[in-house]
Amino acid sequence: MTTQVVNKVAGDQRTTRKLVRVAVAGASGFAGQELMRLLSRHPNVTITAATGSQATSTPRRLPALAKIWDGTVVPLNAAAFAADAVFLALPEAASAELAPMLLSSGLRLIDLSGAFRLRDSASRAKWYPATTAQPEGVAYGLTEFELESIANAKLVSNPGCYPTASLLGLLPLQRAGLLKPGCDIVIDAKSGISGAGKAATERTHFSENHGSVAAYNAFGHRHTPEMEQALGQPVTFVPHLVPLDRGILSSMYARVVSGTTAAAVTAAFEGAYKDAPFVRLTGDVLPEIKHVAHTNFCDIGWKLDEATGRVFVVSVLDNLVKGASGQAIQNFNVMFGFDQKAGLL
Amino acid sequence: MTTQVVNKVAGDQRTTRKLVRVAVAGASGFAGQELMRLLSRHPNVTITAATGSQATSTPRRLPALAKIWDGTVVPLNAAAFAADAVFLALPEAASAELAPMLLSSGLRLIDLSGAFRLRDSASRAKWYPATTAQPEGVAYGLTEFELESIANAKLVSNPGCYPTASLLGLLPLQRAGLLKPGCDIVIDAKSGISGAGKAATERTHFSENHGSVAAYNAFGHRHTPEMEQALGQPVTFVPHLVPLDRGILSSMYARVVSGTTAAAVTAAFEGAYKDAPFVRLTGDVLPEIKHVAHTNFCDIGWKLDEATGRVFVVSVLDNLVKGASGQAIQNFNVMFGFDQKAGLL
Amino acid sequence: MTTQVVNKVAGDQRTTRKLVRVAVAGASGFAGQELMRLLSRHPNVTITAATGSQATSTPRRLPALAKIWDGTVVPLNAAAFAADAVFLALPEAASAELAPMLLSSGLRLIDLSGAFRLRDSASRAKWYPATTAQPEGVAYGLTEFELESIANAKLVSNPGCYPTASLLGLLPLQRAGLLKPGCDIVIDAKSGISGAGKAATERTHFSENHGSVAAYNAFGHRHTPEMEQALGQPVTFVPHLVPLDRGILSSMYARVVSGTTAAAVTAAFEGAYKDAPFVRLTGDVLPEIKHVAHTNFCDIGWKLDEATGRVFVVSVLDNLVKGASGQAIQNFNVMFGFDQKAGLL
Amino acid sequence: MTTQVVNKVAGDQRTTRKLVRVAVAGASGFAGQELMRLLSRHPNVTITAATGSQATSTPRRLPALAKIWDGTVVPLNAAAFAADAVFLALPEAASAELAPMLLSSGLRLIDLSGAFRLRDSASRAKWYPATTAQPEGVAYGLTEFELESIANAKLVSNPGCYPTASLLGLLPLQRAGLLKPGCDIVIDAKSGISGAGKAATERTHFSENHGSVAAYNAFGHRHTPEMEQALGQPVTFVPHLVPLDRGILSSMYARVVSGTTAAAVTAAFEGAYKDAPFVRLTGDVLPEIKHVAHTNFCDIGWKLDEATGRVFVVSVLDNLVKGASGQAIQNFNVMFGFDQKAGLL
Repeated sequence: MTTQVVNKVAGDQRTTRKLVRVAVAGASGFAGQELMRLLSRHPNVTITAATGSQATSTPRRLPALAKIWDGTVVPLNAAAFAADAVFLALPEAASAELAPMLLSSGLRLIDLSGAFRLRDSASRAKWYPATTAQPEGVAYGLTEFELESIANAKLVSNPGCYPTASLLGLLPLQRAGLLKPGCDIVIDAKSGISGAGKAATERTHFSENHGSVAAYNAFGHRHTPEMEQALGQPVTFVPHLVPLDRGILSSMYARVVSGTTAAAVTAAFEGAYKDAPFVRLTGDVLPEIKHVAHTNFCDIGWKLDEATGRVFVVSVLDNLVKGASGQAIQNFNVMFGFDQKAGLL
Repeated sequence: MTTQVVNKVAGDQRTTRKLVRVAVAGASGFAGQELMRLLSRHPNVTITAATGSQATSTPRRLPALAKIWDGTVVPLNAAAFAADAVFLALPEAASAELAPMLLSSGLRLIDLSGAFRLRDSASRAKWYPATTAQPEGVAYGLTEFELESIANAKLVSNPGCYPTASLLGLLPLQRAGLLKPGCDIVIDAKSGISGAGKAATERTHFSENHGSVAAYNAFGHRHTPEMEQALGQPVTFVPHLVPLDRGILSSMYARVVSGTTAAAVTAAFEGAYKDAPFVRLTGDVLPEIKHVAHTNFCDIGWKLDEATGRVFVVSVLDNLVKGASGQAIQNFNVMFGFDQKAGLL
Repeated sequence: MTTQVVNKVAGDQRTTRKLVRVAVAGASGFAGQELMRLLSRHPNVTITAATGSQATSTPRRLPALAKIWDGTVVPLNAAAFAADAVFLALPEAASAELAPMLLSSGLRLIDLSGAFRLRDSASRAKWYPATTAQPEGVAYGLTEFELESIANAKLVSNPGCYPTASLLGLLPLQRAGLLKPGCDIVIDAKSGISGAGKAATERTHFSENHGSVAAYNAFGHRHTPEMEQALGQPVTFVPHLVPLDRGILSSMYARVVSGTTAAAVTAAFEGAYKDAPFVRLTGDVLPEIKHVAHTNFCDIGWKLDEATGRVFVVSVLDNLVKGASGQAIQNFNVMFGFDQKAGLL
Repeated sequence: MTTQVVNKVAGDQRTTRKLVRVAVAGASGFAGQELMRLLSRHPNVTITAATGSQATSTPRRLPALAKIWDGTVVPLNAAAFAADAVFLALPEAASAELAPMLLSSGLRLIDLSGAFRLRDSASRAKWYPATTAQPEGVAYGLTEFELESIANAKLVSNPGCYPTASLLGLLPLQRAGLLKPGCDIVIDAKSGISGAGKAATERTHFSENHGSVAAYNAFGHRHTPEMEQALGQPVTFVPHLVPLDRGILSSMYARVVSGTTAAAVTAAFEGAYKDAPFVRLTGDVLPEIKHVAHTNFCDIGWKLDEATGRVFVVSVLDNLVKGASGQAIQNFNVMFGFDQKAGLL
């Protein structure tokens, strides 16, 4: 990390700021481009390399980022990283292969794939078979709950989009001891189509999704073990595709322990997030995706039926920002000692 | 009901068919217009009157139905019904007031409001306070499960859109004794915006819903007691608005009794719907709204996790057709002895 | 064409009707499935064969048509057509190859591709290079303007979706001599994404189109020469993709001859369509796609600025119905002497 | 304008920057909220007051801006402006009434309404009848073409959304003398529904617009005289509503003078925007709304048919940013000597 005098805006402003050299592997996907957009205006970042998928090694521009970031992208195999930190926005197998090598060069990594999310090796072998080993110094990057381990980590494994939304909604109740043991937790999540990735498939065709909703991977999505690991108990999770581009709404159904009051539920949420700049609590005004699209916020609302002990929690975020690239930068900020909000407002 | 020779299409076709004189009260709302569209091509229907909301008593046309139905609509208070059957596509209070009068004139009614859905008077007083009495001869119009009572009814109370989708998904399991007693049933439903009605409100503004999803009325929607009445047990129900116009997808989470096999679940669905022309079973290929939009079909799929006994059922329909006007016509067909499919394919 | 007693609906209805044996080549594409949906309820059609694209010759069902048409689809090379008429919903090259063979067997054809739309051989060689010859007995299937030639045709070449919308908007003015010679005609058309076809490409990805609009093929779309052929003059045509599934709105800008009154424009439209069951004139209440989606209607509105002689015409239709399969059936009806509306309302 | 030491981000960063005190009148509409969102992160702005429409004088928060701007909004009649500059995001009549008073207090204004856009008093009387006088020192705020007059203005009249998109597309050709005199210019614009405002009307109902497109105000939109004023010639302008929230695509059809080459057209655009940070030229890769949504960019592409001299230009922008609030801030930056990009990247 270098400290230098920067004069970004001509004229009146003179700023002394720390600059971290950052490389991005996988800059041309949905999450990768969002990462580039955000990093390019981060006051403490200088982008030193970016790789993308392409046929030849000829450097190419990203047209969507014209006049935002006018650098060029090269293939991963042509890249040399003169960097302090590397963001990996790659498929699991590529991350699994690349990370150990980069770590051994002393780089600090933020990995957006699922390669290093599961600690249990049997579970990892089942859901992420390309990941054969877990390096030292890995932190799970759910920023609001892992500040200290992230600050000290060599590799931060950025959570999945569904777990980010769902765990931010459930962990405050669970940590406060309010969730009734032995009762089912149902998580019914709705995601925009960008969550299905940039590949052109029948599933991502416009006409398949316009005017429609579809459940998929019922009981079989690999974000399930990630949520179960964090909660320490099984969950029933079914994701759905809804006809919008960006955003997740996670609806969570659980039971609270006998005698739990609405005030206790509110206190659990307020306590968990009193210092969190990107979580906004909306109480019984249930949050909607449009309030968080294109931001790093996660908005959370809830409703308790005191008579029956049923609790309903809703959590919303932008899957490409707080559910991927935004949270990755938030974790980067924690790793390098910057304000969590740097580059994200 | 009159029998007469009709020669609808000039030329080759000569048909002898029964014709029922039908009136529609509330023809200008979303469900009402869909009703007019469907009834106008029903081979056994002649529309003798239609009422709509309007400022003056001057008859007016419905532009969206030009060259489909070119009759005129008059205000309810200007209408005289020379009819055998009347469809009421009115708000609860209007139905509650009008129905007894029409019944006493010997007309048979299909009511699309919630006025007469709840049998328990205390529950009705809470959820439908304008309805002070339940007439004789009321059937609950969930066609697939109430054929006989509908055939004999004076008034068929058409189910709500959410209950239609959800009950068609759950009743086969419940009637087969496969639902585990004492376990929560969670119903997470997603509806297009036409379900919020034709009134221009902040809630129905395009910009509020485009690119967004919103949960609403958590634990407090009046379709909940309707579902609980049919199932005989409590349910946790939360509806959501999704950014599309027509359609509902209902996601249902339950537990089956110990030892239930996937084959038993399949048998329950196949047994329940073996003669149902408008239910299509998709098994573990989960159904999507686009397959049923603009049709009277309800498509149902499911997934059983045999190891844990959790079952997930998905049901989809068009809220304005199978969830309202289409099912109303299906019920009309049963009441008057026509094929269930008449006018609906 | 066979005449026989049919008893389609059990019970009361007994109908004597003519039945035409119909085959569909290309039943699994967007237009093909719409064709199957419509033909399956056509009172004078019996579907004797359907082909679709698939890897093996094993017959397969079309799930979207369950309980609507439960036949099976076979590959084109496995099909034998025991039919009186064949609908070709194929790419240009396949139609160009197949049509002469089928014609020589005495079948009558309705071709939905562009293979036989252009009469001028030089133009056809440029825009439809796979079509090396024009058979005898071809009619251009713009139903409202070509009734007689369609009735007598061996092959009806169904118009493109954009030309259908645009020509129905412009021909009444042109035939009435109201268009000012030598002045530009600008056609700015907006189409839903189903118009881009069923192939999964970057262009048809949901995220490329949601919240966006894109012009494409400016000055270079092959529907341009088709419109110029019908109008007998050049046009400036640019199509756009808009974020919806089905529908086209064509905006047309022209100049009328000096002294043209609004009444003359209205008379031109009313005269052209006084017997047309599927054209609805909306005058200065400009029509919108939602009024025609899922129907065979084309709605047309217009505005004349008498002071300057500028005229603006708007035409809307469903690209898969009136812009493809519906018009194809309308043409079939004319060819076989049925009411134009048979199977289409 | 005050100069002070600001230490916005705790810790490492120390900045000396000028701060301008800014008030916003009309902070609760679509454009107003976007203005607040952008101004709240502008490095040279301190928001000293904000007004909104509300029933009582009780200050209220804007929930959509939680943790972005947590100030309170008061009614206009309760506001006192301790400010150097005021943004007016009000209806025409309110701006017309308020502006003279504020100007006489020495405040500099950026007005987002149409009140002061038309210089010709007869035209203004027709299209903006509530505006009875034009103050001194008004500049037309099309930033890229009016830098000097904006820098010196007391009141900048921010252009309409359609004129911004269309004029940025046409003025380079017109100023380079490439547009053929006496030929029609057709402007066919497509706008998202936020352009129709926040009021809940039948026009803005979700179900009216989903899956639909509609032309409106043909020949009669008040942005027409604004474009004609800037171009010095008549245009044919028809706006359309397309089913998306934010964004405009303007399609422009014109003729170039004889002999104009593609290179000359390109040179005209490149010359006009060589120093413009928010205009991106895409040449014959036509631009799409999704590339500019939520940004202050205007992307422009074009296609020339050299043989016929027809030119097609496409321009896209976000109607709430470059078409309203973003351009207003860009103008503010020019007025107060900041970098055009301040607060906008």
